[in-house]
Amino acid sequence: MIATAGTMNREKLLEQYLTTRAATQELCAPLQVEDYVIQPMADVSPPKWHLGHTTWFFERFLLQGFQSNYRPYHEKYEYLFNSYYESVGDRWLRPDRGLLSRPTVKEVYEFRSVINGRMKEFLESVPDSKRSQFDFLTTLGIHHEQQHQELLVTDLKNILAINPLRPVYRERISNSPRTSIPASKWIEFSGGIFELGYAGNEFSFDNERPQHRVLLEDFALQDRLVTNGEFIEFIQDGGYSDFHHWLADGWYAIQTLGWKAPMYWEQLDGEWYNMTLNGFRKVDQNEPVCHISFYEADAYAHWAGKRLPTEAEWERAAKTVEDSVVDGNFVESNAFHPVPLNPNNRAKLQQMFGDVWEWTSSAYLPYPGFKPEAGAISEYNGKFMSNQMVLRGGSCATPRNHIRSTYRNFFQCDKRWQFTGIRLAR
Amino acid sequence: MIATAGTMNREKLLEQYLTTRAATQELCAPLQVEDYVIQPMADVSPPKWHLGHTTWFFERFLLQGFQSNYRPYHEKYEYLFNSYYESVGDRWLRPDRGLLSRPTVKEVYEFRSVINGRMKEFLESVPDSKRSQFDFLTTLGIHHEQQHQELLVTDLKNILAINPLRPVYRERISNSPRTSIPASKWIEFSGGIFELGYAGNEFSFDNERPQHRVLLEDFALQDRLVTNGEFIEFIQDGGYSDFHHWLADGWYAIQTLGWKAPMYWEQLDGEWYNMTLNGFRKVDQNEPVCHISFYEADAYAHWAGKRLPTEAEWERAAKTVEDSVVDGNFVESNAFHPVPLNPNNRAKLQQMFGDVWEWTSSAYLPYPGFKPEAGAISEYNGKFMSNQMVLRGGSCATPRNHIRSTYRNFFQCDKRWQFTGIRLAR
Amino acid sequence: MIATAGTMNREKLLEQYLTTRAATQELCAPLQVEDYVIQPMADVSPPKWHLGHTTWFFERFLLQGFQSNYRPYHEKYEYLFNSYYESVGDRWLRPDRGLLSRPTVKEVYEFRSVINGRMKEFLESVPDSKRSQFDFLTTLGIHHEQQHQELLVTDLKNILAINPLRPVYRERISNSPRTSIPASKWIEFSGGIFELGYAGNEFSFDNERPQHRVLLEDFALQDRLVTNGEFIEFIQDGGYSDFHHWLADGWYAIQTLGWKAPMYWEQLDGEWYNMTLNGFRKVDQNEPVCHISFYEADAYAHWAGKRLPTEAEWERAAKTVEDSVVDGNFVESNAFHPVPLNPNNRAKLQQMFGDVWEWTSSAYLPYPGFKPEAGAISEYNGKFMSNQMVLRGGSCATPRNHIRSTYRNFFQCDKRWQFTGIRLAR
Amino acid sequence: MIATAGTMNREKLLEQYLTTRAATQELCAPLQVEDYVIQPMADVSPPKWHLGHTTWFFERFLLQGFQSNYRPYHEKYEYLFNSYYESVGDRWLRPDRGLLSRPTVKEVYEFRSVINGRMKEFLESVPDSKRSQFDFLTTLGIHHEQQHQELLVTDLKNILAINPLRPVYRERISNSPRTSIPASKWIEFSGGIFELGYAGNEFSFDNERPQHRVLLEDFALQDRLVTNGEFIEFIQDGGYSDFHHWLADGWYAIQTLGWKAPMYWEQLDGEWYNMTLNGFRKVDQNEPVCHISFYEADAYAHWAGKRLPTEAEWERAAKTVEDSVVDGNFVESNAFHPVPLNPNNRAKLQQMFGDVWEWTSSAYLPYPGFKPEAGAISEYNGKFMSNQMVLRGGSCATPRNHIRSTYRNFFQCDKRWQFTGIRLAR
Repeated sequence: MIATAGTMNREKLLEQYLTTRAATQELCAPLQVEDYVIQPMADVSPPKWHLGHTTWFFERFLLQGFQSNYRPYHEKYEYLFNSYYESVGDRWLRPDRGLLSRPTVKEVYEFRSVINGRMKEFLESVPDSKRSQFDFLTTLGIHHEQQHQELLVTDLKNILAINPLRPVYRERISNSPRTSIPASKWIEFSGGIFELGYAGNEFSFDNERPQHRVLLEDFALQDRLVTNGEFIEFIQDGGYSDFHHWLADGWYAIQTLGWKAPMYWEQLDGEWYNMTLNGFRKVDQNEPVCHISFYEADAYAHWAGKRLPTEAEWERAAKTVEDSVVDGNFVESNAFHPVPLNPNNRAKLQQMFGDVWEWTSSAYLPYPGFKPEAGAISEYNGKFMSNQMVLRGGSCATPRNHIRSTYRNFFQCDKRWQFTGIRLAR
Repeated sequence: MIATAGTMNREKLLEQYLTTRAATQELCAPLQVEDYVIQPMADVSPPKWHLGHTTWFFERFLLQGFQSNYRPYHEKYEYLFNSYYESVGDRWLRPDRGLLSRPTVKEVYEFRSVINGRMKEFLESVPDSKRSQFDFLTTLGIHHEQQHQELLVTDLKNILAINPLRPVYRERISNSPRTSIPASKWIEFSGGIFELGYAGNEFSFDNERPQHRVLLEDFALQDRLVTNGEFIEFIQDGGYSDFHHWLADGWYAIQTLGWKAPMYWEQLDGEWYNMTLNGFRKVDQNEPVCHISFYEADAYAHWAGKRLPTEAEWERAAKTVEDSVVDGNFVESNAFHPVPLNPNNRAKLQQMFGDVWEWTSSAYLPYPGFKPEAGAISEYNGKFMSNQMVLRGGSCATPRNHIRSTYRNFFQCDKRWQFTGIRLAR
Repeated sequence: MIATAGTMNREKLLEQYLTTRAATQELCAPLQVEDYVIQPMADVSPPKWHLGHTTWFFERFLLQGFQSNYRPYHEKYEYLFNSYYESVGDRWLRPDRGLLSRPTVKEVYEFRSVINGRMKEFLESVPDSKRSQFDFLTTLGIHHEQQHQELLVTDLKNILAINPLRPVYRERISNSPRTSIPASKWIEFSGGIFELGYAGNEFSFDNERPQHRVLLEDFALQDRLVTNGEFIEFIQDGGYSDFHHWLADGWYAIQTLGWKAPMYWEQLDGEWYNMTLNGFRKVDQNEPVCHISFYEADAYAHWAGKRLPTEAEWERAAKTVEDSVVDGNFVESNAFHPVPLNPNNRAKLQQMFGDVWEWTSSAYLPYPGFKPEAGAISEYNGKFMSNQMVLRGGSCATPRNHIRSTYRNFFQCDKRWQFTGIRLAR
Repeated sequence: MIATAGTMNREKLLEQYLTTRAATQELCAPLQVEDYVIQPMADVSPPKWHLGHTTWFFERFLLQGFQSNYRPYHEKYEYLFNSYYESVGDRWLRPDRGLLSRPTVKEVYEFRSVINGRMKEFLESVPDSKRSQFDFLTTLGIHHEQQHQELLVTDLKNILAINPLRPVYRERISNSPRTSIPASKWIEFSGGIFELGYAGNEFSFDNERPQHRVLLEDFALQDRLVTNGEFIEFIQDGGYSDFHHWLADGWYAIQTLGWKAPMYWEQLDGEWYNMTLNGFRKVDQNEPVCHISFYEADAYAHWAGKRLPTEAEWERAAKTVEDSVVDGNFVESNAFHPVPLNPNNRAKLQQMFGDVWEWTSSAYLPYPGFKPEAGAISEYNGKFMSNQMVLRGGSCATPRNHIRSTYRNFFQCDKRWQFTGIRLAR
């Protein structure tokens, strides 16, 4: 965990702030100016928008929120960089973010730099009486920026992947082992009353709280993620053309959208290839399958005669291996793609953290007694609690210190541009 | 309950079959031929399609399913009257059902009549060895037809309501009491481990099973439904224009669709009117509010500082008053609209059954261990378990013997052409 | 010509009125009530709408237009039956005409009957001082009703043709000759200054006037219409898949809409069939091709190395055979489909009138000096003079006395539900 | 005229080639990298696409067309930079041109530079036997590039104009005279038989040929363009809300799109402002109105009780002032906006060339005897001859030596991002 919800040492907070801000820019290092600007589909935001929006978040909720006489850096930036805060006012519409050539990338970096300076100055001078709320919102802003680091990676993947020139973001750093992955095993968990959700003193999002009791029956999880090789069996068995495996909405989606494989996959001469951030290459059978929708995850589970875990089951299991977070394949490993199971890892339950977000069978709904944060920040999570499913565990695009066992990610059933995959339950 | 899942007396089954089939046609008595044909929106099916589809269900799954040499009544009817059974084959697309002038209404009634005759004959002669499966499917067909009775009522309401000539389906039979409804009271329920779902021997749908344990905390429900008068307070307080109360999807929906009141409401000279099956009239403040979406139910609850019940809470409470089913305002009462609370009713928890389907805060998901029925019938419920919310309790368009405390209805969050309303929880 | 633009004998005018009104209803005789109600595509209006709209035209512009104290038959009918007259006020939207079950067909016939009575009465009593304008508008109303007779036929063809049950409107009355049609010949016309447009004393539409001079070079027209057999050669030669023959908009249209043959054609076992008002049957090679768009007509001409005639060329040629109108295949012949060339007909230039409307290469634009009629009637023709092409000659759904050589019909380039065909020029 | 259609001096051709190519890049000098990439609406292409496409044109039709062993600069560039040549093969879809970050702007400039070198080399070595066709296609490529210079200016105007930051392309160079423009006068032209179209020896497009006879009646044209001040009168008189002035398609367009003024206009505190390439400023009443659709031009003419000229009338009049081309406001004047009438200009008929393209009342159709160029180039003009109207005279974004009196430009009735305006006729 990178920050407590309460007050902390000013130097430590500043350091976390600056480290996080720098990490965002580090992710952009391989980009050309042109890559920052476009938006191939409505879900994707141009990288320069992420750079501006995360900066605006600090300007709006910290600098402006705490200083009545604060003069914004630019009068139009709030309009351009507000994402969805109705409390804050009108905004440039999301599907049109790729229609803006200005501000230029250089101007956005200047904006970042100036706000960083102001944040540093203000952080050193904010009166103690306001420290509690200030520290909380700064910490929230840091986690917010981390979330956008992940989106930045998945969005620029989309920007590069739809381009017929197939640009490489970063060269692949390692090769997959030649030997194939052993068959998955079932790890058993006993049922009982389980405390679901976050109850500690570190930072957590409002949607992880309050911790509350749930009743679990005995269950088992696969010890590892489903691989590309296993998913290809599903494809080869006609999985995408047999309606029996599919939810009605999912069947409609694959008919309408013409899906016959995970996103970014392409078949050439009978062989599956996929576009990755390391370039276009053959699908590696040993890697965890990724870029699949909830519908595909659910259909795969049906085909396999199994099911997806509930979020409570997943969290129950993850609590037993929470320390393994440090071993996961996160954004810091610079793989930018899920990697095959490490054969030297002797843990029973593996790949719970990192690699791919794991679809659960749980709808994204408020926990009993859910209370959104106060103020405009109340719009952060709560208003999205319909028509989405919960995902758990983080991915290869998640910063390591951003994830925890109680963390709830959420997407609509048909989304697949994130690094999303499958672990089966029974 | 009208039928057991097991075998029963042949005469009794036949009687239930014929009674149900006749009831469907009775509901159509007030219609003009033209009313049977049209489809004002994709959700609505033309009445003659309901008449044909329910008949096809018996022909396909009983007559044809049990007799290898069965010759269908008409070679094209399966194509025209299959709703969504992929197992059965191609079909005329749902949004285009209103584009078919033929078969004529008369021809569809002939189809019904002939199939009734064949069912009677076959029901009397089906060998005992096949009785178990035959009885089950016949019973399912009867419940299926009852579901379509409800849809028939709500669909023809839409057909009449969008017409500028404002046709009346049936005259209103009673007037609302002049005195206003007393304030709602909270009925407390204690928590604990509760058995959710159906476990009896009568008919039930697969989605109500298996019965399983859930943990409930203490909770309270309103003793009655939210009224039009109460909902008007929400409107007058700016409920539809304050984003704070709304889920993001809901806010988007009301912006896009221009909703400012329940469906079928219209404001004339500052007064609210609504189109009902009894014609166009002033909104009765004492009647339960209806024709609202999940989004509106949820926003109302937020505005009221309360919440919607979970389906487990609702069922837990309903079990205490299951006998009250016989007192509810169902289709048999011929009101075709929710009615005000009966002042003479002394029960603590009222209007749980009938009047309006009550939106719950539970997503429509499979119960743990859910097993769909075998064969084509497996498509009946399971494949719709995404992007929908559960409703409970039946409505003024539900046949009385069709409903029970474990019954799960489900619709997307933005649907409101059904008789749908609100009961708050806390 | 059925009526002069000036005043005429009252009895004669009444007779024309009543004859035309009766003819409309005669066309509906084979319909079932259900056929009157639906609208399979936005271009099509339900037959009962045509019956009501033509009646409303007389009520609005004659009965109400000439009598200040006139009380409309029904307060909502103007809203329901106004087609596109902005001057008249709001109206039910065209694409939604098929969503109205009421008024019933019976009620619309009653409306017709009552208005006929009122027209008869008023026609006998209108003061002479108003006769000129009254007669003009009545005559316009009669021609207007004739135009809707044609639309009624083409619309009900669509209603029946999209139905999988393939209903027959009227049985075919004659068989095509077994011998094939002789090759077409070129009829030469000399150029010079030609007077284009109408300048007589009978009724004409404003868009045919004023007569004006145009310069024509020498040209030639085919002596007959292009046949199905000839069009099949185009298809078999890959006409629909070779972009060279197509306008860019046409190529886009056939890609998007998947056109590979004329409307209502279907290929079964390598043989072309088409749905006609006489039922589903093999395509008759000798019949003129019909139900093709301007794009297809233009592509066919390109493939044939020829071109479509301009409207001036067509009219120049038609003037030489204007008497042949009486021999054409019009709605009165009850064929309801174009028929093969009559081998006994010895005229040089054949099939100029009736059978199919002939696409010209002329855009539908105002003639120099064009003056729309005064008042609301000004909206009749002029406002549609963009993005449409001119068609000439009438079809098998046109009343014989409705057509003349100067008559300009017009449709968008992609429309093909009318009886539209091809005559080549060079 | 910059080039003959026949062979010419190699040095002269090379000079024209290089001058034109350099001019394109000169127009891009004020751009930021980001401005090159985006596509705010489907009609607009990103500037870097124009740079690449015009280069591809030379590579494909000259370098590759004349050298059998030519190796393309990049294997994917044909796919990326082909506009609409079906003969050439598949291509990246036009509405998606703004989704490509690569090739980068720098890479596109390198592509231009290399092709320029190869063209220079090949131009000096092409054998005389191929000179005729080579010179023609090179000249066509030069005119093609000039057309894209105009599109580049109008497209980048759109890119900058929709941006809330209101970037300036180039500062305004002159101020409008304070005195207002004198009332327009009518210039009379006598009718007769006129030779329409191009018949000279210089370069012309196929759509200007063949020259052919048309009959003109006497007519008159306004001596100057309609001004913003005059158009504001139309607006203030309720022109946009009175359906009488509008074609039905136009009325539908302005309802649907919410148009209440020319494109890029905005009303602030009752005053009209417009976005120009010189920035956001008050509408200058003396400037010719521009950025209006054919529908608006036609409605204005109707409101004024006049009409638009036919293309034959316009050309007939323009022939009398063809020498004035040298005085017009073209792209070379660096105004990048239409300018007020020069009070010192004593010509009778003014502003015929430059400033704004003038909408005519003529549909864009082939001239009698039209023959497209041979080969892939046949797709250049002919296939667009439907659903468009002709515009004449060039604009402030047209290169001076690109325009002539016979030049036919064409756009759909609802397009208004070009510099398009009005001159009335009667």
